[in-house]
Amino acid sequence: MNNNAKITLVGAGPGDPELISLKGIKAIESADVILYDALVNEQLLDYAPATCIKIYVGKRAEQQSIAQEEINQLLVDYALTHGHVVRLKGGDPYVFGRGGEEVDYVRQFGIETFVVPGISSSIGLTGLQQIPLTYRGISESFWVITGATSDGKLSKDLFTAVHTEATVVVLMGYSKLREIVALYKAAGKSELPIALIQNGSLPNEKLVLGTIDTILDESTEKRIGVPAIIILGEVVAKHREFEKVKVAVESLV
Amino acid sequence: MNNNAKITLVGAGPGDPELISLKGIKAIESADVILYDALVNEQLLDYAPATCIKIYVGKRAEQQSIAQEEINQLLVDYALTHGHVVRLKGGDPYVFGRGGEEVDYVRQFGIETFVVPGISSSIGLTGLQQIPLTYRGISESFWVITGATSDGKLSKDLFTAVHTEATVVVLMGYSKLREIVALYKAAGKSELPIALIQNGSLPNEKLVLGTIDTILDESTEKRIGVPAIIILGEVVAKHREFEKVKVAVESLV
Repeated sequence: MNNNAKITLVGAGPGDPELISLKGIKAIESADVILYDALVNEQLLDYAPATCIKIYVGKRAEQQSIAQEEINQLLVDYALTHGHVVRLKGGDPYVFGRGGEEVDYVRQFGIETFVVPGISSSIGLTGLQQIPLTYRGISESFWVITGATSDGKLSKDLFTAVHTEATVVVLMGYSKLREIVALYKAAGKSELPIALIQNGSLPNEKLVLGTIDTILDESTEKRIGVPAIIILGEVVAKHREFEKVKVAVESLV
Repeated sequence: MNNNAKITLVGAGPGDPELISLKGIKAIESADVILYDALVNEQLLDYAPATCIKIYVGKRAEQQSIAQEEINQLLVDYALTHGHVVRLKGGDPYVFGRGGEEVDYVRQFGIETFVVPGISSSIGLTGLQQIPLTYRGISESFWVITGATSDGKLSKDLFTAVHTEATVVVLMGYSKLREIVALYKAAGKSELPIALIQNGSLPNEKLVLGTIDTILDESTEKRIGVPAIIILGEVVAKHREFEKVKVAVESLV
């Protein structure tokens, strides 16, 4: 067994390699092995020592991603044989990153675990677009919900969220946009502002602004695809280009 | 008017100066003026050029903080006279940071605005303590709510949140802990795990774990004070020291 066995979960941030923290870079610089996901910017691997083993554990074309159990085992095996394993995840490791499960598994083997938080796309991508998650008089909270529940259905939390004034951010939920729109319409929120951000913080970032009524057409027209995040709430109207949406909607009335 | 007038809102992260992003450091390095808050780690000011003007706009002892209107005006005045103003805020600038109001004000003067997101204490401080905000089978979402509403009351969102399975994080709400505990008790959640983190990510960090039933006594005993964040939800039981809380509670039964 390697006496330096330890595992650090590191949040790589939402895409732009400059949105990782200094602490995250230091962890990479001291890694013996890095296991990284699909949404991690590969430029970050350049901070690793030349001898570091870098293993991609995200989805591959025409193939499912490596099973979570397999990743858990790789973490343990590499820590015991090589020392410091950095588990590099997109965004923050505990925001739908299954980081909790990895830490639970690893601890059973008596291996030390550390976490370096990252900028979650829920906060970071909205911020870069200057959509404020909270705003006095408009929103006193924000609620971040997964679009990819284990049973494949919409999260029950969304059925509550639709009736609140919280800003709602749905991650990994673009494939359910039609269902989400139907849910908001049924709640009488057809005019609620909504934004979609694809490839946020990267050179190929796409933004779509609209209302619940218009967003499906807009997203088709702008050819939005995954990965994309969904932001729902009155604060979306604070985006500097939202005025155009309002004008377009009013011209239809 | 200075031709380089622009304002960048920068998230300084939750306290540890290594939890700022590279992009945040680059913004500070190019600042002509920095306006910074109480919760910003002053070590970050060392990245600024020698000629940079650094202005503290947070609370002072025995004095209220500078009014928001005054900060707005300082941002505009300094941008127009000095060029690049960095508005450095604790955590993320749009998570209860009133960043949205500042951007709205500044835009009226035709000054360009940029935002560099930060690691919000809601995500970062829980992560460092290895409390996962989300966990398959336990929590499909997290809801971040202010404890400091403009009318001084508990946010109405908390009255909804208490009935959900979302992990709830209350920022700036420590002074309302007693009211929050009463709310959770009334909802039949006396055994729900709860954590308090004071001065998170700093050398003087304090953590208190408990349940709704025990947390008031625990926080008195451990002499917790502001600034502290509150985390409510079953995921808190994933903290590696939570086992001790369970043993203590069971010994009372």
